[in-house]
Amino acid sequence: MLNFGAYGCANAEHVGYNAGMTNYPADSVGLVAPQAANFNEPFTLESGIQLPGFELVYETYGELNADGSNAILVCHALTGTHHAAGYHEGSDKPGWWETCIGPGKPIDTNRFFVVSPNNIGGCGGSTGPLSVNPATGKAWGPEFPIVTVKDWVHSQARLMAHLNISQWAAVVGGSLGGMTVLQWAIDLPDKLRHAAIIAAAPKLSAQNIAFNEVARTAIRSDPAFCDGHYREQGSKPQQGLAIARMLGHITYLSDDSMGKKFGRDLRDGKLSFGFDVDFEVESYLRYQGSRFVDRFDANSYLLLTRTLDYFDPAREYGDDLAAACRRIQARCFVASFNKDWRFSSKRSRELVKALLDADRDVSYIDFESRVGHDDFLLNIPQYLESFNAWMEGVR
Amino acid sequence: MLNFGAYGCANAEHVGYNAGMTNYPADSVGLVAPQAANFNEPFTLESGIQLPGFELVYETYGELNADGSNAILVCHALTGTHHAAGYHEGSDKPGWWETCIGPGKPIDTNRFFVVSPNNIGGCGGSTGPLSVNPATGKAWGPEFPIVTVKDWVHSQARLMAHLNISQWAAVVGGSLGGMTVLQWAIDLPDKLRHAAIIAAAPKLSAQNIAFNEVARTAIRSDPAFCDGHYREQGSKPQQGLAIARMLGHITYLSDDSMGKKFGRDLRDGKLSFGFDVDFEVESYLRYQGSRFVDRFDANSYLLLTRTLDYFDPAREYGDDLAAACRRIQARCFVASFNKDWRFSSKRSRELVKALLDADRDVSYIDFESRVGHDDFLLNIPQYLESFNAWMEGVR
Repeated sequence: MLNFGAYGCANAEHVGYNAGMTNYPADSVGLVAPQAANFNEPFTLESGIQLPGFELVYETYGELNADGSNAILVCHALTGTHHAAGYHEGSDKPGWWETCIGPGKPIDTNRFFVVSPNNIGGCGGSTGPLSVNPATGKAWGPEFPIVTVKDWVHSQARLMAHLNISQWAAVVGGSLGGMTVLQWAIDLPDKLRHAAIIAAAPKLSAQNIAFNEVARTAIRSDPAFCDGHYREQGSKPQQGLAIARMLGHITYLSDDSMGKKFGRDLRDGKLSFGFDVDFEVESYLRYQGSRFVDRFDANSYLLLTRTLDYFDPAREYGDDLAAACRRIQARCFVASFNKDWRFSSKRSRELVKALLDADRDVSYIDFESRVGHDDFLLNIPQYLESFNAWMEGVR
Repeated sequence: MLNFGAYGCANAEHVGYNAGMTNYPADSVGLVAPQAANFNEPFTLESGIQLPGFELVYETYGELNADGSNAILVCHALTGTHHAAGYHEGSDKPGWWETCIGPGKPIDTNRFFVVSPNNIGGCGGSTGPLSVNPATGKAWGPEFPIVTVKDWVHSQARLMAHLNISQWAAVVGGSLGGMTVLQWAIDLPDKLRHAAIIAAAPKLSAQNIAFNEVARTAIRSDPAFCDGHYREQGSKPQQGLAIARMLGHITYLSDDSMGKKFGRDLRDGKLSFGFDVDFEVESYLRYQGSRFVDRFDANSYLLLTRTLDYFDPAREYGDDLAAACRRIQARCFVASFNKDWRFSSKRSRELVKALLDADRDVSYIDFESRVGHDDFLLNIPQYLESFNAWMEGVR
C-alpha cells in the first residue's frame, strides 16, 4: 500500500503552505489527504480481460467505529475523484460533495466513517490509462480495457476488505455515482444496509448515448488524439476534449436555468457579426471546455462515457429491472430534480416503480430544481434536509 | 438572369435520364428545375457591410394568376434549399417539403404560385461563401459577411419585385423558415396577407445558442478548417462538420422518439468493449454526419448558425415582442409539436401570446409529435389537415 500522507485532520495549525485557508469552516472535515491501496491479485473485468492488479486512491473522513459498522462508501460521478470533502493542503477548493459530507451534514462525519475512492479507468490517481501497464513498462494509454460499473463495484469490494469493513452502513452517490450504488445493491446485496441513488437512471437512453457518441467523436477525430497515443507523441487532443466538455455542460443545466443564468446577454453589449464570443453563454462554455483540458485525460473520458453507455443492471435479469431489484436487501433512497434533463425525474421513477414492484423499501423525492442535473452537488436546503432525514435512519 | 432550365413540368415523357422515376405521384408537382435571378444593385446588410449585388436561386411551382395575387413564398430551414417540392431530373428524391406542397396539398399548386428561394449565405446556389467575390475574383469563403434573417427578408423582397408580385398571399415556413416568416410579417407588413410560422421560436434560448456554439467550435477547431480557407488549401473540415451535424440530429428528435427508434439496440447483438459502433443510435449519427459533409459547406454552416443566434425581432422594439407584433397585418398560423425540444411548444405559445397581446389574428395548434422538431417535414395527418384547413382561408 502506497500512502500519500496522513489521513486528513481539520486542525488549522497544520496548514503549512495552504495559501488561502487558515481556518476551515466548522462543518467541514477540513484538511484531508488521499491514500492509496494496492491490490496485487489478478482482477478479471466484465469484458473478460484480466488486470494483473490495480491501485485505488481514496480519501476517508471521520472515524471507523470498533465494530466497523459505521462505514459509508461514496461513489463519484463521471469526471469526479476521490476528493469528495474537505480541503487539500495548499488549496481553498473543497471536495466535490462538500455540501453533503461533514460534521452535522447529511453524511455526518461525527457519526460515520466515509470512504471515497477514485474509480479505476479514470485519471484521478487510481489505475487507469495514465498508469503503467506492468506487462509493457509503459502507460496503458488507449490499451486500457473498458471497465464497467460492475467492475467498479468489485474493485471497491476489495478496498472494503482491505479496510476491514464487512458491510457498508450505506453506499451513496449521484449521477453515475448513483448508478454505481444501484449496481452495488444488486450485485452484493448483503454488503450494504442502505443505498442512496441520486440524480441517476437505471440505464442510459438512446439520447444519452447519442450525446456520449458526439463527445467521443470530437475526441477521437482530433488529429492530436493520435489514436490515443497522444502522450507518446507529445500532443494532447485539447480541442476534442474541450468540445466534449462543452457538450456535457449543456446537459448539466436545464434550458430554464441556462436561460436565467445567461439569457441572451451580450458580452460586449452588441453583436460582433463574427464568430468570437457574442453571448455570455458562449464565454461560459469556452471557459468550461478549456479548464477541463488541464485536469482530464482524453482516454479516460472516452472510457468513462462507455462505462455509462454500458450500464444496464437489468440486462442480466432478462431486461427486467424489477427482477434485478428483487436481489436488493438495502433500504433505498431515490432522489431526482424536476428540471434535470440528463437523467430526468421520469428515469428515477422507473427505478422506484421497479423497486416497488420488487417489494423493496424505498423512499423517493423529486426536488424542485435550481439548475438541473448539477443540483445533486448544490446546497439546496430542501434536498439536504430530506437527505439528512433519511440518513438519520442509517444505523 | 441566369436560367438553369425550364420551369418544372410534371409530364413524365420529359424525363430523359431520370433513373428511378418515370411516373411522378399525382399529388406531386413532378419534374422541376431551379432558376436564378441576379440583383446587381448594391445590397446593404444589417451588419452595415454592402454586398455589390447577389444572386438568388429559386424554384417555382404552380402558375401565377393574372393579377399576381396567388403567390406564396416558402422559406427554408437551416440547411434547406430552394428544392422544396417535386423532383429534379435524374433523382428520385423529392424536395424537402413534398408533404406540404403539391396539387391538393396544404400549399396547393392548383391554386397557388409557390416561390421557394435559397437563402443568401447558404451553399445551395444563392450567393454565399462559395460564390466569387467580384472585388477579388476569388470565392468569398470565410470573408462572406454574416447575414441576418432581416437580410433574407429584404433579399427576397427583391425577388418578389422581379417576379412582379406586389403582395404574397402567404409566407410560410418551418423552424428557421418560420422565423423568416415572422420577420417578413414584422418588417414588410403590407407585403403579405397570411403568415404560417411552424416549429419556430421568437428567438433562440441560451441553450439553443450553446448547441450552436459547440457545433461551431467543432468546425473551427478542425485543423482542416484552415481558418475557413480550406478550399484554397485543398482540404475540408469533414470531422468538424460531421460533429456539428450529429449534434444537430440529436436536437431534431425527441428523447422519446429516439428511444422508440433506436432504444439501446446493439448493432451486433453484443457489447464490443471498444469504441466502434455498439448501439444503433451511434450508427445513425455517424451516417448522418458523414452524409452531410458531402452536401454542405462549413463556412455556410458557421454563418447560418450565427443567423439563428442573432434572430430576435423584438430587439429593435425594446425587447417587447408584442410591440414588434403590433406591426403585423397578416393573419397568422402558428403551429408547434409537443415533443419538439429544439423549439418547444412553449416558445410558440410565447409568440401566440405576443400576437394576442397585440390584438392580431392568430390560429395556433400544438400537434402530437411523432419524432420531435423534424415533425414539420413529415406526413402527419392531423398536422397536414389542420394546415390545409387554415390554408383554405388564404385568398
